[in-house]
Amino acid sequence: MPDTQGAGQMNGAESLVRTLVASGVDTCFANPGTSEMHFVAALDRVPGVRCILGLFEGVVSGAADGYGRMTDRPAATLLHLGPGLGNALANLHNAKKARTPMVNVVGDHATHHAGYDAPLSSDVEGVARPMSHWVRTSPDAQRIAADGAQAVAESLTGAGRIATLILPADTAWNPSNGPAAPVAIPPKPRVPEEAVEIAANILRQNDDTVIILAGKGLRARTIGLTSRIAARTGAAMLAPTSNARVERGAGRTPIKRIFYAVDAALEQLSPYRNAILVGVDEPPVAFFAYPGKPSLTLPPTCTVHRLAGVDDDLADALERLAVMVDAADTEPVVQDRVITGLPHEGGITPETIAQTVAALLPENAIIVDEGISCSRALYAATAGAPAHDWLALTGGSIGIGMPLAAGAAVACPDRKVVNFQADGSGLYTAQALWTQAREQLDILTVVFANNAYASLDVELANVGAINPGRTARDMLELDRPVIDWVSLAKGYGVPGARAQTLDQLITLMREGLARKGPMLIEVPCEA
Amino acid sequence: MPDTQGAGQMNGAESLVRTLVASGVDTCFANPGTSEMHFVAALDRVPGVRCILGLFEGVVSGAADGYGRMTDRPAATLLHLGPGLGNALANLHNAKKARTPMVNVVGDHATHHAGYDAPLSSDVEGVARPMSHWVRTSPDAQRIAADGAQAVAESLTGAGRIATLILPADTAWNPSNGPAAPVAIPPKPRVPEEAVEIAANILRQNDDTVIILAGKGLRARTIGLTSRIAARTGAAMLAPTSNARVERGAGRTPIKRIFYAVDAALEQLSPYRNAILVGVDEPPVAFFAYPGKPSLTLPPTCTVHRLAGVDDDLADALERLAVMVDAADTEPVVQDRVITGLPHEGGITPETIAQTVAALLPENAIIVDEGISCSRALYAATAGAPAHDWLALTGGSIGIGMPLAAGAAVACPDRKVVNFQADGSGLYTAQALWTQAREQLDILTVVFANNAYASLDVELANVGAINPGRTARDMLELDRPVIDWVSLAKGYGVPGARAQTLDQLITLMREGLARKGPMLIEVPCEA
Repeated sequence: MPDTQGAGQMNGAESLVRTLVASGVDTCFANPGTSEMHFVAALDRVPGVRCILGLFEGVVSGAADGYGRMTDRPAATLLHLGPGLGNALANLHNAKKARTPMVNVVGDHATHHAGYDAPLSSDVEGVARPMSHWVRTSPDAQRIAADGAQAVAESLTGAGRIATLILPADTAWNPSNGPAAPVAIPPKPRVPEEAVEIAANILRQNDDTVIILAGKGLRARTIGLTSRIAARTGAAMLAPTSNARVERGAGRTPIKRIFYAVDAALEQLSPYRNAILVGVDEPPVAFFAYPGKPSLTLPPTCTVHRLAGVDDDLADALERLAVMVDAADTEPVVQDRVITGLPHEGGITPETIAQTVAALLPENAIIVDEGISCSRALYAATAGAPAHDWLALTGGSIGIGMPLAAGAAVACPDRKVVNFQADGSGLYTAQALWTQAREQLDILTVVFANNAYASLDVELANVGAINPGRTARDMLELDRPVIDWVSLAKGYGVPGARAQTLDQLITLMREGLARKGPMLIEVPCEA
Repeated sequence: MPDTQGAGQMNGAESLVRTLVASGVDTCFANPGTSEMHFVAALDRVPGVRCILGLFEGVVSGAADGYGRMTDRPAATLLHLGPGLGNALANLHNAKKARTPMVNVVGDHATHHAGYDAPLSSDVEGVARPMSHWVRTSPDAQRIAADGAQAVAESLTGAGRIATLILPADTAWNPSNGPAAPVAIPPKPRVPEEAVEIAANILRQNDDTVIILAGKGLRARTIGLTSRIAARTGAAMLAPTSNARVERGAGRTPIKRIFYAVDAALEQLSPYRNAILVGVDEPPVAFFAYPGKPSLTLPPTCTVHRLAGVDDDLADALERLAVMVDAADTEPVVQDRVITGLPHEGGITPETIAQTVAALLPENAIIVDEGISCSRALYAATAGAPAHDWLALTGGSIGIGMPLAAGAAVACPDRKVVNFQADGSGLYTAQALWTQAREQLDILTVVFANNAYASLDVELANVGAINPGRTARDMLELDRPVIDWVSLAKGYGVPGARAQTLDQLITLMREGLARKGPMLIEVPCEA
């Protein structure tokens, strides 16, 4: 039996852990099983990786997404074979759409065991591929370190990628050649001069242009830069509906988003005959298709020019464009601080909730928005709140809020994380509350309890079912029985309370924002 | 906009629902989203399908597995695009290993929307393939009904299969040609005479033969038949470690299982020089590989003969074999009823829990065993309990117990379901409790709370980490904070209680077994 304790030659698992540390990975969100025990034992021996357990793999991948969005560096995940990876897929999908850097380490059966129909045998690469940009199965213990270094580099290529490295158990336990050196990250492609010139010409010659700013472009510096170009040329600027991370609030440049509802988005984009894409490869597309409605929401007559795709060096492209349109000295648009009073009447509605948040939000908070139908008023209401980051559901796969909040809080221990959470979505991954409790993460979770998949009510009406019967309503209503979120939170070790009046909501919000550590507030919400 | 209400030409969704009903599908476990709203609306209009909501897709697929195991007919599932299917994969993996018949209906974007990078776009077929036997994307509304009929037939071919039908939204909303007729199920292949003769010769000429009886062979009739062959020829018989469904208890033929631990299994199988496989294609394989240990657990010198593979007509093969070895008149082995008294001392241990269950188990119960390290004593202790079915974790993907119990209870409303549930595993899919509450399913859940992934302690020691440090222990221990299962159950609407003494356990077990409807008991368990 090969040495597994590192007293002699280092095994593959330890060579991989040391390689990840050397490549800058300092956090591992994990839900390991038997095949990963050598990796876990190696984590125990090698300093430099904070290892955080999730009770379900969707928590693990969602937390790694939150960490990656806030640090622009990959967290590792540790997952158990095909089914464990399967459980992680929904939030990997969101992370892939967010272009979050992430390195998944997925254990598999030992190579000599793979040919048998053992209970846990499955096509791990097949499970990985749809939600990964890069997939590799390490063939042996000598290769795993180099593959690990490559995985980190892949995750940091372009805007960020999902790299999945499959680690057969014998690759972990057999003797290795020791750690590998970090692999250089390829620089982001420079946008060709011609593309900048075309954009400049469009902006100079037209007054009906919209700049669609997306992806990594939605940080304070690049939004500000874009606002100078827009102000100088009379162009509009818009962000997509859902974005990985927007830096916004007082002192920064505000940016509006394209509406979710197709008809509203069509109306919103109808004035534009020219569109310039920055940080995104394709023009805006509706979330879903509907009979008789278009998929693309820009007018068919609109000319679309891609200045910088998702992986390009878009800050450089914007700087050159600013010079070219003579906006180098134009002032960026800056959002004033708007002091909002607390609401005093009106009961609990999406609007009074939003007003309460705007009034109480602390400086430098991180907002995680999975409020779906109940958070409609929040974005606008917090435009002039203290500077904050806004993280949203990028891939439409619900169940990301609480894991994403956990990962963001791990990444930024000195910042308050406020997670606005739709109840139906939260029920997919409520186990994240336990991780929040164990790690004492500084997260206030506000659950909007409408006891329904309310967004589907609208969709059911959209398909023509105006008076749904019992069967259809049973698929949309979560009120028999009503979920008791305070008890769920208690079950996972997070203190919680229910706000039944606006005064209670305000009191609880104050308490939740003032304390250090996790807390959950259940708020009734009829959107 | 095409007609979607059935007043004119029937749409694709309705043609599919009517086809499923005509093909014998009467139950749909569902977690729908926007793309599935036409299907939901059709379920509303077409009588004959009981539609049951799960708050997470792992609940949906696990429940469909339980339903299929108990009825030998497919339930439908209704899932939302790639991520929704991703969430279902872990329990689809278990169902695939169990060879449960199941028809997954997975919505996707409309075909004309698929080319755009919409947030929810993904390779749905790619997600489906690893955990499905059959995958098809319907190309248009005219084809969906025939594809649905084919999916049902595929699910019922051989021992049972996972059939996944992907339903682009326009395939659902466009006009169809109406429902399709059911597709005939191909008969199970008859085992060739020569294979039966070889088995008969092995049994006649050797006294060191073990019959490995698996899959659909583990029903009362075929276990009894095998016991006659075994008794007549002096052969042993064993079942695999984990099985989809074993009919057992008083009045039926008992069968022992191959041990989980590799060393124990090697020892158990060491006497045999001949093995006859019935209901399984490959010889027994260890759950995991370990350095220096074999994958296959039969002795290397053992001759393996496959009498009937997983998909073959194994009852017919066994009957012919019984005649050939002159066992047609041999009496089957029958288990006596063993009346077990309640334990009075010893505190709460796996053994006293098992004794309590054996004493109190009602007639015709269904046991769902995901007790992992804590349920070790249960199988032996209940050998002489009243007749019952035993459903286990077939694919090693933890998080099936509560969903499986829900599906079994839907399938068998007149039978008590008792789910022995390890805490770590239960935390993957605890949302199933809500479905149990909504449908008022007659399920007693006994959660073994050891606050650890205890089975991994052993595995970590197996890899040589005898004194794990803080990092490793953090990955295995669930006690900071301790999960409060009674609160979790309350959160989902299921009454629960905690047993802290043996007397309390007995009282609560009596109460839980006597009532009709769901209840949860949390039991401390140091395995």
